[in-house]
Amino acid sequence: MASSLSLFFLFLITFSATLTTPANSLPTFFPGATYQSLIKQAKTPKPKLPFKAHYFPQTLDHFTFQPKSSKLFYQKYLINSHYWHKGAPIFVYTGNEGDIEWFAANTGFMLDIAPKFKALLVFIEHRFYGESMPFGKESYKSAKTLGFLNSQQALADFAVLIRNLKQNLSSEASPVVVFGGSYGGMLAAWFRLKYPHIAIGALASSAPILQFDKIIPWSSFYDAVSQDFKDVSWNCYEVIKGSWEELEAMSTQKEALAELSKAFRTCKSLHSTASARDWLWTAFVYTAMVNYPTEANFLKPLPAYPVQEMCKIIDKFPSGAAKLGRSFAAASLYYNYSRAENCFEIEHEVDTHGLHGWDWQTCTEMVIPMTCSKESMFPPSGFDYEEFAEQCQMKYGVLPRPHWITTEFGGERIHKVLKRFGSNIIFSNGKQDPWSRGGVLKNISASIIALVTEKGAHHVDFRSATKDDPDWLVEQRRQEVEIIQKWLNEYYADVRHA
Amino acid sequence: MASSLSLFFLFLITFSATLTTPANSLPTFFPGATYQSLIKQAKTPKPKLPFKAHYFPQTLDHFTFQPKSSKLFYQKYLINSHYWHKGAPIFVYTGNEGDIEWFAANTGFMLDIAPKFKALLVFIEHRFYGESMPFGKESYKSAKTLGFLNSQQALADFAVLIRNLKQNLSSEASPVVVFGGSYGGMLAAWFRLKYPHIAIGALASSAPILQFDKIIPWSSFYDAVSQDFKDVSWNCYEVIKGSWEELEAMSTQKEALAELSKAFRTCKSLHSTASARDWLWTAFVYTAMVNYPTEANFLKPLPAYPVQEMCKIIDKFPSGAAKLGRSFAAASLYYNYSRAENCFEIEHEVDTHGLHGWDWQTCTEMVIPMTCSKESMFPPSGFDYEEFAEQCQMKYGVLPRPHWITTEFGGERIHKVLKRFGSNIIFSNGKQDPWSRGGVLKNISASIIALVTEKGAHHVDFRSATKDDPDWLVEQRRQEVEIIQKWLNEYYADVRHA
Repeated sequence: MASSLSLFFLFLITFSATLTTPANSLPTFFPGATYQSLIKQAKTPKPKLPFKAHYFPQTLDHFTFQPKSSKLFYQKYLINSHYWHKGAPIFVYTGNEGDIEWFAANTGFMLDIAPKFKALLVFIEHRFYGESMPFGKESYKSAKTLGFLNSQQALADFAVLIRNLKQNLSSEASPVVVFGGSYGGMLAAWFRLKYPHIAIGALASSAPILQFDKIIPWSSFYDAVSQDFKDVSWNCYEVIKGSWEELEAMSTQKEALAELSKAFRTCKSLHSTASARDWLWTAFVYTAMVNYPTEANFLKPLPAYPVQEMCKIIDKFPSGAAKLGRSFAAASLYYNYSRAENCFEIEHEVDTHGLHGWDWQTCTEMVIPMTCSKESMFPPSGFDYEEFAEQCQMKYGVLPRPHWITTEFGGERIHKVLKRFGSNIIFSNGKQDPWSRGGVLKNISASIIALVTEKGAHHVDFRSATKDDPDWLVEQRRQEVEIIQKWLNEYYADVRHA
Repeated sequence: MASSLSLFFLFLITFSATLTTPANSLPTFFPGATYQSLIKQAKTPKPKLPFKAHYFPQTLDHFTFQPKSSKLFYQKYLINSHYWHKGAPIFVYTGNEGDIEWFAANTGFMLDIAPKFKALLVFIEHRFYGESMPFGKESYKSAKTLGFLNSQQALADFAVLIRNLKQNLSSEASPVVVFGGSYGGMLAAWFRLKYPHIAIGALASSAPILQFDKIIPWSSFYDAVSQDFKDVSWNCYEVIKGSWEELEAMSTQKEALAELSKAFRTCKSLHSTASARDWLWTAFVYTAMVNYPTEANFLKPLPAYPVQEMCKIIDKFPSGAAKLGRSFAAASLYYNYSRAENCFEIEHEVDTHGLHGWDWQTCTEMVIPMTCSKESMFPPSGFDYEEFAEQCQMKYGVLPRPHWITTEFGGERIHKVLKRFGSNIIFSNGKQDPWSRGGVLKNISASIIALVTEKGAHHVDFRSATKDDPDWLVEQRRQEVEIIQKWLNEYYADVRHA
């Protein structure tokens, strides 16, 4: 069985279409669980945020000059000016692939530190997500409209909007620091590198800027997920690893779907065993990503250290119990920690309407090759670029540019390249986060810093502080504040020496 | 009389359409002398260059992903591999607004230093110039095609081409240094800033990256031209300054054109006094730019220090002589130093076919406001952005983005922004060059260096060394070589410490 996953933080997960695919053939390519569906769940009830929404008339195409590229669209951004006064810093969140409100709600760190810095908080929505749709409901219609969705246009949006905002606030001397998590963290780091005249520094949390081309091994991500489980319990890892085979075996049986539907307590009968596989897969991957040290509700409500809790469930079964059933029980923690579900809508979340945002990006610039090694707890799989490209061509009528991100933003030999170039970037990563293997994990220079925690997960530092936060997390945030303060002090000192 | 000039190195000069425009109204906007026409003269006979031409299949639009933006075009580049071996440095000239052969012929410095560094020389042609026409003969047809002509696309071209070339040469470890003069120098500096992972350093000669927005006074350029003449002879400056009025007075007389045609020894009768004005203007501006210390043939054959020679001509006349006649005599040095002309084709050079390249760029991104102050030797004039924008809209159907270059590349407070960001750029300037006032004239950091010579003119350091070169020029080039050597030493040391 093979699977070519193109998965990002809360990006579209694309799964093997069928469990009956023989091991040496390659899966088709279609969206499984989706980011939007996750958001839908996560943001209910919608949090009350201390922000005011604004809409900026943004240029559609910054890099060509044609009558149609001068078209404007309304880009949403959120403002909190409660602590700010003219001249004080502006902290900008460089929005990633989704509704900006959701990122604002899950980046409490910025709100927590705003009073200390008297900072203006700005969360800018990424084009083609949330309400920032350049072509309204037609935005995802085809390559003709989606063509304008990419990271370089997004960075230029940020540049134009920030410059304009400072002008409107008559606060052009305010230093800007950009913040971002996950893809947003990549954008924050790249923004500092490409627009140093606009942002004096960047805090890029869990930004896997090295996940492209051949910079890191393609199996890194799933090896890391597996390591999280191995670290808790070898048995747990082996049970999950063995469960795929059991699932595959079922799929060849008559009545398999009915049996599986019952075993997985689905609300409606399953149409494909692949759905069950995707459902399990999602649970393990996302639980590893949000293996937070405190109870949290980012993707789903989960207990502290949920990987540990999943493995407790698996390890409690008698040793002869079917692996698939144990994996199901563990995955249920992810989907039903709050015990609100009587049954699972396993296939319900598949919705192909308007969910092409990140999928489009992975089919054009964000080509992130992923494989599953034999050592991972997932079925081994390769990455066939030709097939991937063909599927993108079929789907969107465009071919990916697999080397473009590394051409435009670099990444190869990053420690040598940035050793003598650039400054003021923090790359923060938690090693529990499988994306951390694509991150910058060692200091590059005196001011391009890696802050790495052993027990941290996906941009845990960006979450609101809680009374239960462990010391290492408190310390990580303290260091971030200290470094940002240093950037600001330097900036103001430079201004004074005009 | 007012004139809104948008002039760059050898960029389109746009002149006041008529000399009869009253002082408080604004000129229309049309191309006068053109870069291409200058090249045509300059490159006859075509020099034999030690380069081989190649053509790279280049992506039309790097920043959108649409079926049509994947269109490829053939981008020309020149290679000299005579001194090179695998792993040795690659010196790339980032081509500017014209035929790449012409830049190669006038950047002998790179050939001069290639043996010392065992460097591969690569001259890359800028898209939409020379033979690198994405839409063949239709390339300049309208905004639909011209839309893809801009500096960001050009920089991405360089990045893609260089990366591909290194791969094809199996020499990915070769350090790349970029070189460029004038607009090409801007591109070289910007390339190092935006693509530090591709170029380890940049030598940007006469690159007026601060000539945008409100960074420097808009009158800087013409004030500097005037200063060149003032410095040689106050009388010379006053004669030129007074000649415009005499020309204007003539234009109201009957038979003025016939008289002027005779006085200016035109081959064909003039249709407009404005042509005579443009012709004089061009001579003074370009002579200031190429006020080289040795006899040279860049734009035209000229003696050493041609501004001095022009002023000698003017100062030799008896003091009562008409100023216009003296200006004409001085300008004749520019047009006829080789004494090959029996008459002047003053209006001949106006050719509106296919010359929109730079004009398009100034109408979109390269908005360089220019005015003539009362202290200049040109008629005072302002810059009316609204009118300029309207003319661009009429001409191309697009509006300029006057703040885009400073948003994309910065420039404001550059000494503070780059003090703690970036490295390995030399900004070289000669103060005779009127463009130098838009250049970086002071060191920014330990490795972003300004090399300024009092007597240098427009990228004189890039010209082939001659036995007559003054000491200051020899010394400037020596410093450039020394600094580049330092970059390379650092690079190789970093590689060894892998």
